[in-house]
Formats: sequence, structure tokens, C-alpha cells
Amino acid sequence: MLILMKPATNPDMVALVCSAVEDLGLVPHPIPGATRVAIGVTGNTGPVDETPIRGLPGVVDVIRVTKPYKLTSREMKPDDTVVTVGGIRIGEQRPVVIAGPCSVETREQTIETARRVKAGGAHLLRGGAFKPRTSPYAFQGLGEKGLEILAEARDLTGLPLVTEVIGVEFFEAVEAVTDVLQIGARNMQNYPLLRRAGKSGKPVLLKRMMSATLEEFLLAAEYLLAEGNRNVILCERGIRTFCDHSRYTLDINIVPELKSLTHLPVLVDPSHASGKREMVVPLARAAFAAGADGVIVEVHPHPDKALSDGRQSLDLDLFADLMRGLERYVPEPAVDLVA
Amino acid sequence: MLILMKPATNPDMVALVCSAVEDLGLVPHPIPGATRVAIGVTGNTGPVDETPIRGLPGVVDVIRVTKPYKLTSREMKPDDTVVTVGGIRIGEQRPVVIAGPCSVETREQTIETARRVKAGGAHLLRGGAFKPRTSPYAFQGLGEKGLEILAEARDLTGLPLVTEVIGVEFFEAVEAVTDVLQIGARNMQNYPLLRRAGKSGKPVLLKRMMSATLEEFLLAAEYLLAEGNRNVILCERGIRTFCDHSRYTLDINIVPELKSLTHLPVLVDPSHASGKREMVVPLARAAFAAGADGVIVEVHPHPDKALSDGRQSLDLDLFADLMRGLERYVPEPAVDLVA
Amino acid sequence: MLILMKPATNPDMVALVCSAVEDLGLVPHPIPGATRVAIGVTGNTGPVDETPIRGLPGVVDVIRVTKPYKLTSREMKPDDTVVTVGGIRIGEQRPVVIAGPCSVETREQTIETARRVKAGGAHLLRGGAFKPRTSPYAFQGLGEKGLEILAEARDLTGLPLVTEVIGVEFFEAVEAVTDVLQIGARNMQNYPLLRRAGKSGKPVLLKRMMSATLEEFLLAAEYLLAEGNRNVILCERGIRTFCDHSRYTLDINIVPELKSLTHLPVLVDPSHASGKREMVVPLARAAFAAGADGVIVEVHPHPDKALSDGRQSLDLDLFADLMRGLERYVPEPAVDLVA
Amino acid sequence: MLILMKPATNPDMVALVCSAVEDLGLVPHPIPGATRVAIGVTGNTGPVDETPIRGLPGVVDVIRVTKPYKLTSREMKPDDTVVTVGGIRIGEQRPVVIAGPCSVETREQTIETARRVKAGGAHLLRGGAFKPRTSPYAFQGLGEKGLEILAEARDLTGLPLVTEVIGVEFFEAVEAVTDVLQIGARNMQNYPLLRRAGKSGKPVLLKRMMSATLEEFLLAAEYLLAEGNRNVILCERGIRTFCDHSRYTLDINIVPELKSLTHLPVLVDPSHASGKREMVVPLARAAFAAGADGVIVEVHPHPDKALSDGRQSLDLDLFADLMRGLERYVPEPAVDLVA
Repeated sequence: MLILMKPATNPDMVALVCSAVEDLGLVPHPIPGATRVAIGVTGNTGPVDETPIRGLPGVVDVIRVTKPYKLTSREMKPDDTVVTVGGIRIGEQRPVVIAGPCSVETREQTIETARRVKAGGAHLLRGGAFKPRTSPYAFQGLGEKGLEILAEARDLTGLPLVTEVIGVEFFEAVEAVTDVLQIGARNMQNYPLLRRAGKSGKPVLLKRMMSATLEEFLLAAEYLLAEGNRNVILCERGIRTFCDHSRYTLDINIVPELKSLTHLPVLVDPSHASGKREMVVPLARAAFAAGADGVIVEVHPHPDKALSDGRQSLDLDLFADLMRGLERYVPEPAVDLVA
Repeated sequence: MLILMKPATNPDMVALVCSAVEDLGLVPHPIPGATRVAIGVTGNTGPVDETPIRGLPGVVDVIRVTKPYKLTSREMKPDDTVVTVGGIRIGEQRPVVIAGPCSVETREQTIETARRVKAGGAHLLRGGAFKPRTSPYAFQGLGEKGLEILAEARDLTGLPLVTEVIGVEFFEAVEAVTDVLQIGARNMQNYPLLRRAGKSGKPVLLKRMMSATLEEFLLAAEYLLAEGNRNVILCERGIRTFCDHSRYTLDINIVPELKSLTHLPVLVDPSHASGKREMVVPLARAAFAAGADGVIVEVHPHPDKALSDGRQSLDLDLFADLMRGLERYVPEPAVDLVA
Repeated sequence: MLILMKPATNPDMVALVCSAVEDLGLVPHPIPGATRVAIGVTGNTGPVDETPIRGLPGVVDVIRVTKPYKLTSREMKPDDTVVTVGGIRIGEQRPVVIAGPCSVETREQTIETARRVKAGGAHLLRGGAFKPRTSPYAFQGLGEKGLEILAEARDLTGLPLVTEVIGVEFFEAVEAVTDVLQIGARNMQNYPLLRRAGKSGKPVLLKRMMSATLEEFLLAAEYLLAEGNRNVILCERGIRTFCDHSRYTLDINIVPELKSLTHLPVLVDPSHASGKREMVVPLARAAFAAGADGVIVEVHPHPDKALSDGRQSLDLDLFADLMRGLERYVPEPAVDLVA
Repeated sequence: MLILMKPATNPDMVALVCSAVEDLGLVPHPIPGATRVAIGVTGNTGPVDETPIRGLPGVVDVIRVTKPYKLTSREMKPDDTVVTVGGIRIGEQRPVVIAGPCSVETREQTIETARRVKAGGAHLLRGGAFKPRTSPYAFQGLGEKGLEILAEARDLTGLPLVTEVIGVEFFEAVEAVTDVLQIGARNMQNYPLLRRAGKSGKPVLLKRMMSATLEEFLLAAEYLLAEGNRNVILCERGIRTFCDHSRYTLDINIVPELKSLTHLPVLVDPSHASGKREMVVPLARAAFAAGADGVIVEVHPHPDKALSDGRQSLDLDLFADLMRGLERYVPEPAVDLVA
């Protein structure tokens, strides 16, 4: 349920409506907008008598939300959410490129990569200190030492940092350092982690699980928003299919569908979605052409020596190829993808 | 196996090599190139002693082909195949757009659509006279009457015609009328039909089955080439996945992979790959950005009244959106996708 | 739509109803039952006024059929269809085992295999003379010579024969020899072939395409029934999934669902569904436990020398394992799977 | 790498070998066997010089393990692992049935269900106190209060308890109460949780993620074994496919493959694998026929009133159907599935 307020509403009117919502046993979520406030309502398990709310001062309309996801829905909030990180306006500014190593291996490799992607035009730095690895015997990341190196790379280059948090027990250490908290595909339905990230003041980049439906993906984001964190960025990173010519299959179809159904920014990770370096540039372009707000790519100065994901990391020449003329693949605003 | 000839080879030398190949119980396929001839060899089930061939006049080298598909492979023929239809050079000229109704319903609807897509900038006309339908009770197309209407639409607009052939028993009727024979996804492994089309002098547009691997797709094309038809165009039209936000999932990853592994032109069908009209424009742009040579889209002047696939047909406004500025999504040749 | 007649209806009454159905522009399909006749009606694209039919002599009730498939539906025909082949009652007798080589390679191999599976307790003989092969360079079967050998094996053993027909152009040759016409997974949506087989007097074993939904599978069967062939046997043979531990994934879930939704017999092909010899025995047992009427398996006296599918063919020891105690995996009728 | 010791080895010899392994920078895992000890070795990232180990007293052989999973592999431990819980020997005794409600809703519902499944012949009780739910607005379980109720149900019936732990922050509360720790499909790659459970003295039931390959599944189990917990039970619960006739697709093929590749017990969850009550009985039988050691099913006295998963819960009549004659679907040991 969504309560639309008049443009000139004052905070007291909003507070009064929120209080009336709580009296019905429901949860109000005020959503500030450009010209007026709306109040999302969650918690109803059946039909609700809206009459008492419709009569309150400042209330224009009460709208039923038809989707199981509510706060993430464009029905609740028609205009795009813009997540601002270090001056980069994700969801508005296009094309946004997040680049960096799969994992922090050494100080030198990390700082060199950060400097090179900065010089090449990247907007944010990515890099993993805590790595979720399929095998217990694989390199698991440098942990807190890796965080320190990432912080240094961020400070040296001025690129805001995106790094993954893989559990609530490491949450505060990562949160203290990073600019954007990444929740990986394997943790998309780790609900305690989602709830914790929902309480953070830092933006969250949420990756789609390889077998998640669109609805499951938006419901995972809903966990974040329902806890109060509105700075959520979605990221498609490939799904599991029968195809064997790439590691995963980039679900390019979900890009325009997400842009239509949710107000949140949508990124694409062509490195994981393909698992092959030589596919990354064409897929990144395709992502923008389909309406994505940004891409996140793995870059390594010497991919063949990478401790993880070397096969899918761009070398510096391919990264330069990626950045060259990338803006031409962004549709002009006039040709709006979101009908 | 591939036999490379010297640039100045004369036809007699080629004939001599072919004859020597046949003496080994194998099948030679001469492949004319810009500067010299190569001879593809198929039919070997085990190792072959190449010595007698290496010693023949004009032979420069004999190369092992590592893939199960041979004639479709870039190993056999490194330069792009260009299929010329009515002056349109598919595989070279970009972006190519094939547009038209899903099925021929009436003369008026077909001719109106053909005129509108021609005016809008389409390069070829598509339309179905014989329709493969999941239900025996669904509209099955107008058959031969539909072919007549399509021929008229082609003649009135000058747009070359692409139409589907669904079995060997209708082959000659379709072949007599169309400019490009389409083999649909459901028939990608209909081997008698592939063999027949391989003997045709008309180009073939071969669609990928919804569950075909890349290798199965290229082996289906190999049936066509092995029978002698070199004018083959591949078309990705979406695969079956668990996703429920679109009818199929466009496998955008296969576009750069096909461009890398085969010399044949690669099209994308965003209408079938999504099943939703509003996804077609972003997916078509993504297809070009990923390196596709063309797209094939369904257009209907009044999609809500279409007898088949109305949900995925572009109306005329969306078709205009598609065509507007489409060339900017085509990567410049300098940034070559095919490494 | 289904018209239920009274138990004591005479043929004239049925003819009168059929004629009235035709007057409405629809197609009547009389379905004889144990105690009375029903008349399936297809061809309606919208609501039909049933009043004139309800008033005819002998008509008890007119029932709307809710599924897109009609004649294959249990709504139309609640009791099991039993397809009798050479005294074997498929759909009633359990467990039924169809066994034999993937393809006819030589007279000796075929006749030896037929004798051994007969001695081992198989009920029908399978074997391929025309083989649909992914690669144009793979062994394509012995063709008409293979049919002769299969006919001889059938005559020597007394086992009824199941063999595949891969196109309308070979239809009559295969139909003349075989007891059951097999339509393979790749041809499940080859509609001209389905229509031709629907007109045959021989039973048809229809395999599910690797990416077909349940509804698409039953609609393919509907093509056969709509043309008049009621002796249709369904066969699940594995679907395409992301799994790489077997060639396909046996969709065991579809077995009880098919038994519930259709009256047609349901077989399982554990050889193709796994692609691995050592999985065939456990999967065959699972198929019966889940309610299947029979299995079809590949057997080769020397699997390592097979020209096709050797990896998935049972040797004679494993075939003996399969047959030993197989009846214990068949649920007793009292515990009915079809709720 | 696996070090085989002589039958008569004494503990000092084993300690000496372990110490030599550690000197090479590797990790030794002694694996006691019926007649002799083996020592699994993990941690090598490249070739290791085995010479110093081969020369130690008591060492018979040093074997390279070819799979990426080591301790879970039958190469390391050829004989079946038997996990004993409250006298039930999972992995040896067949058929084992774990039954109970999806989630604890009330004390009455839980205790009634526990009593009824006990009376019906179940071997262990399942039930969820902490529920991972796709939507933040769905019933999330009773939490610690639910654990108390489950403990009471266990004490009243004597059935050992299986319940899920959804994060490290609830770990100790669940561990203190339950007999078997369940790690759900969504947490199969929650590595901090796996590491914590690997340190527990309680057995772990690990469910396969809906998109996990066999190798990923065994590597997740490897996390548990590598931390020292050898009492691990695997559970197939359905994979994501294109099929829409059931909620997931039971991957029955993985049952014989797991039994062949790993020594761990293998269960099947037909409730989640189908999402439909009426499929549970046939799928459970199929699971045993394919070689599973047990099944885990949801039972609710009044499924239509269940707060979660009512559609897939057996009512008490269907549970009785399940248990009736279930042992006949278990293959006799003589017909060993594990070649």
C-alpha cells in the first residue's frame, strides 16, 4: 500500500499519517520525493480498511501495490533512485564503470591496478579482501590486511571503493573501510546478512544469485529497503543455464525488465557473466545498450598470474578498449527504455 | 583437415588435390578465397597420412581442424562470409534489419506492414506463410496463399523476402518464391530438411534451437555447408532457462563467441528471445553492441489483433524507435570484436 | 468441450450429435469407453452455445475442457489408454521393458542383441535404422538395409519392433516394417511428421524434446490424436539443465504429473536421460517406482565397440541386473499414484 | 593425496607421518578405517615430492586424488560413512524417513505432527524454528521459542531432531538443542557458516543449492570435513530448470552419481523438489529405488492451514501411504548401485 501526500505537506502531517498506519498494526516507510512525500506501507497480510487514512490531512490518495516486492517497486516510487558515492551519481550518470582486481593479492598489484583503471577512466574501484571460494583449498583472500591495502588504493587514487562482505561476523570491519558494501551472488538469500546491511548507512551493491528469478532478486533487495537502507544498487552477473560456451549466461533480458519494474540502479557484471576475458567488452557494451546504468569488471595487469579468476580478467589493453567510446552505447534519454 | 593452396594456383592443381583427397576415401570441399583457394576435407574418422597430399603441386600446408564442425569453422575459413541478398550484404553491412509480421494473416495487413517497414528503413521483409504452431488448434498460416501475398509484398516494396520452410514436402513451393529460406528453431535438428536446404541455391537463415549448445548449432549449419550451400546465416533466438520474466532468455554471450568461432553472419531475434514487445528495442541495440550483424523483428500495425505472437510484435511507433540512431550501437571496425 | 452420452446410446445417436457439432463449425472425435461413448469436440476458438447439443437424444452432459490439450487430457478420457502391441498391453501391464541396440550396425550384432534381450525378458525390441545425428559426419544408420535386419530380428525372436522415423519422406518404408513408430525428441515439434503419424494405423512412441514443457509435450501428442491415432505412448528422455554429471537430467517429476493429467501410457528412457551406462539400472527402477508404465533402454553386447551411444548402452550383465526383480519397483495398484 | 598405512600401524607411526606431512607445509587428516588408518592430505597447490613420506614406517602407498574434492571422495575413503543419530544409522539402514512440519507454528501443531509421524514410522523429526523466507514480509519462524517446542517434541516422541541453522549468529542456540544441524540450500555456499558447522560435534545435513553442480556440492561438504566434522549427510532437494509443472526438478540422476563418488550418506527431499503434495510419495519411492539412503518430507496435520509450504506438505493419509511398503523400493544389497 502506498499513501500519496500533497506537495505542500509538512512533517507533522507525515508523522500523523505514520502514526495512524502503526495503529493499524502496519509499518510506515516515508519516501521523500522531488516535489512531495509518499509513505509506503508494509506488513499487511490481508485487506486493510483504508478509510481512516484517506481522511487524514495531506493525504491525496491510497494506492494498492500489486507486486510482492513493495519498496523496491516503481509502483511505490516512480522516479529513479540515484545512489551517490564520492560524487558519482549511480542511476543517473551513464556509463558508470567499476573496475579493479578480482582479489587483493599484493599491495603492488592492487595499487598498480587502481592507478591504471583510474587513469583509464573508471569511476569506482572494486577488489576482494574476503573471497567466497567454491573450494576450501583455494586462495580465500587476504582478509583484514586486504582491506587495508584497498583503503590505501582508494586514498591514493580517489576512487570510491566497492568490496564484498561475506558474513555478519566481518561486517563492521568491512563497513568501516568501504564506500559500497557488496553482497555477492552466493549470499543473495543470506537473510541475516541482508538484514544487517539494511541497517548500514553505506550503499549496498546486491548481486543476483545465479538461479534467482526476478522476483526473488527484488525480494532480496526488499530486505535491505525494509530495514531502512534506500541506497541499493542491483547487479546482474549471469545465470546458470545449459550453455557451455561461457561460465554463466548473461541475462540481458532482465536489464530492461528491472529498469521498468524497480526504481533502483541496475549494473551488469560481464566478467562473471561470461568467465571469458574476450567476451567482456562486447557484453559491457550490450549492457549499456540494453539500458544498464553501469558495469563492474575485473582488471588485472597480468591476468595469467592472477590467483583467482584470471581467465575472466581484462588486461590493461582490453580495459582501454572497453573505455574507448563507451558512451556511444548509452541510449539517449529521449529514447526512454522505461515505458 | 584443411589444405592451403598457393595464391597463384590454377584450377587443374585444385582438381588434382581434390582427386587425391578422394583417393584417400575423403571428401574435398574447395573454398575460394580473396587471394587463394583452400580445400576443406571431411570424412576422416581417424588419423590420415597427409604425406601424399603435401607433395602435390600448389599445396602450401595441411592443417588439422580441431573442432567437430569443420566448414563452418574460422579455422577453415578465417575471413567473414558475406551473404548477398538483393544487394544487401549480410555479414558486412551493419546494422541489417529484417522486419515484418509474424504470420501473413491478410493481404492488406501484410502489404501495409511491408510498406511501413520499408519506409522505416528495414532491409529485408520477414513473414510466415507456413507456421509451426505448438497447438494443432492454433492458426497454422495461410500456406501457399500466404506465399503469394508475401511475393506480392516483396514485389511492391522491393524488400527481399525471408520466410520459413517447415518440411521437405513444402520445400519447392517456398524455395520458388523466397529470397532467403528460414529454418526455424524447432527444425534445427530436422536433418532431412537441413540436407534438402543444403542443396538449394537460395541462402538459408538457420535459427538456434532453444536448447542447442553452440556446438550443436554449428553442426546443424555444417549439414548445410557439407551439402554445398555456403550462404548460411545464423540466428540466436533465445534459450530455455528458469527465468519467468521473459518467454526465453536471449543468449547474448553466444554472439561474440559465434563471431569468433565461425565465419558465418550472426543475427539475433529479439522478438522471440523475449516474447515482450517492450524488450525488443533494448535487446536489438544490445545485439548490435555485442557484435551481431543484424536483427530480425516482428512488426504488426495492430499487434493486439494479431493471430499469432501479438504480445511480442512491435507496433509502428516502436519500430520507428528501433530504427532511430540504430547505427550508433554498431561497434566501429577498428574495435574488432573478433580477436 | 466434451459431450457425455448415456450408457445405452446407439450409433445413430452418436452420428446425430457429431453432425450437430459439425453444423457449429467444430470437429467431433467419438471416444468409445467401457460403458459408454463420449464425444470430444475441438476447433472452437471462442465460447460456443451448447444449447442445441444439450437437447439431442442420448446427451447427458456437456463439459468444458480447461486445458489447451484436449484429446490427450484425462478430463476428456478418465480411464487409462492401453496400447496393445503383439500381445503386450502397454499402459496396463507393468513393468514393460523395450530393449535393443542404439543403431543397427550389422546383422550379427542386431540379431545377437535381440536374442539376448528376448532371453533376458524384454517385451519389445528397439533399434535404429535411420539415425538422427548431431554431426553430418557421424554414422547415420544403415537405412532401408537396417530396416530389413530389424524385421528379421523381430521375426526370429517374436519381439515386436520399435524403430524411429525421422521424416515424412521415409515414413512409408518404416511404417511397413515396424510395430511401433518412434518419433524422436528432435522431431517432437516436426508438425508435418506428427500429422503424418497421426494418420497411421500403427502406434506411435513420442519422445519429449529436451526443452519441452509438459504442455508442449501433450500438445505434440494432441497433433497425433487430433488426426485420429489414439495409440500414442509418451516417453520422457531427459531434459537440458546446467548439470554436468550426466548428459541430460531425467525429469522424474513429470512421470506422476503425466499419469495424472493424461490417459496415455508413460515410458522413461534412462539411457538417453543419463548418457551413462552405470546410471541406467537405478534410473529405470526409479522410473517404475514413480509410476512409469515402462522403460526403453539401449543394450549392446560389446558397448565399447558401438558405433553410437556406446557410453550409455547396457552390456548383457547390466541388462540382467536391470531385469532381476524389476517388478518389485512397480507400485501396487492399491496405492494409486493418480489421485 | 592419500597415504595408506599398514593394517597393524600404531598411533605413533600415524603421528610421525602427520608430522612429516606438516613439515611439507600440508595438512594431514587421519581417517580411521575398519582394518587400517589412511591419512588424507590437503593443502598442496602443486606437485609434491612424496619420497620422504613413502620411506616412513607403516606407509604402504601414497595415492594421488584426482578430484578437487578430497575428504568427501571415495578415492580417499572407499567404504560408506555411517552417521549415527539416536540409534538410527544413516548411510547403512534403509529406508530412513525424516518427517515433520515445514515450520513450527504452534506447540500443539508441532507436537501433534511429531506424535503422528512417530506413530507412522518416521525415524527422525524435522521442523524449522528459524525460517529463511524469500520475502521479508513472510512468516520468519518462531525463533528460540520454536527451538523449545521442537526440543519438547523430540523429548516426548524420542525422535532425534533435525533443524536448520541460518547463520553463525544463531549457531550456538540451535546447536545446543538439535541432534542434526541442517544447512539449507540457500546457505550451501555460506562459507563462514560451513566453517562453523565443520567445527561442531553435531552431524550436519547439507542441502544442495538449486543451481549447484555436483562438484560445487561436494566442495561445500569438503568445507565441513576439512574443519574436522566427518558426520555429514548430503541432501538433493531439486534444481532450477525451465520446467513449470513442478516448483523445482528433482535431479534423480545425482543420487547414483553421488553414491559412486562420495562415501557420505545421500538423502532426497521430495517435498521441496516438487512443491506439490501429490508428487511426494512417487518421488520418495523413486529416490530409494535410485539408491538414496533416506528421504526428508514435510508433514502437516492440516496442510491447507500451514503458514508455509502447505502446498507441498503431506497430510496424515498421504504420510501413511508413503510409509506403507516403502522398504520394497530399496534395492537389495546384492544389486549394488555403487560399482
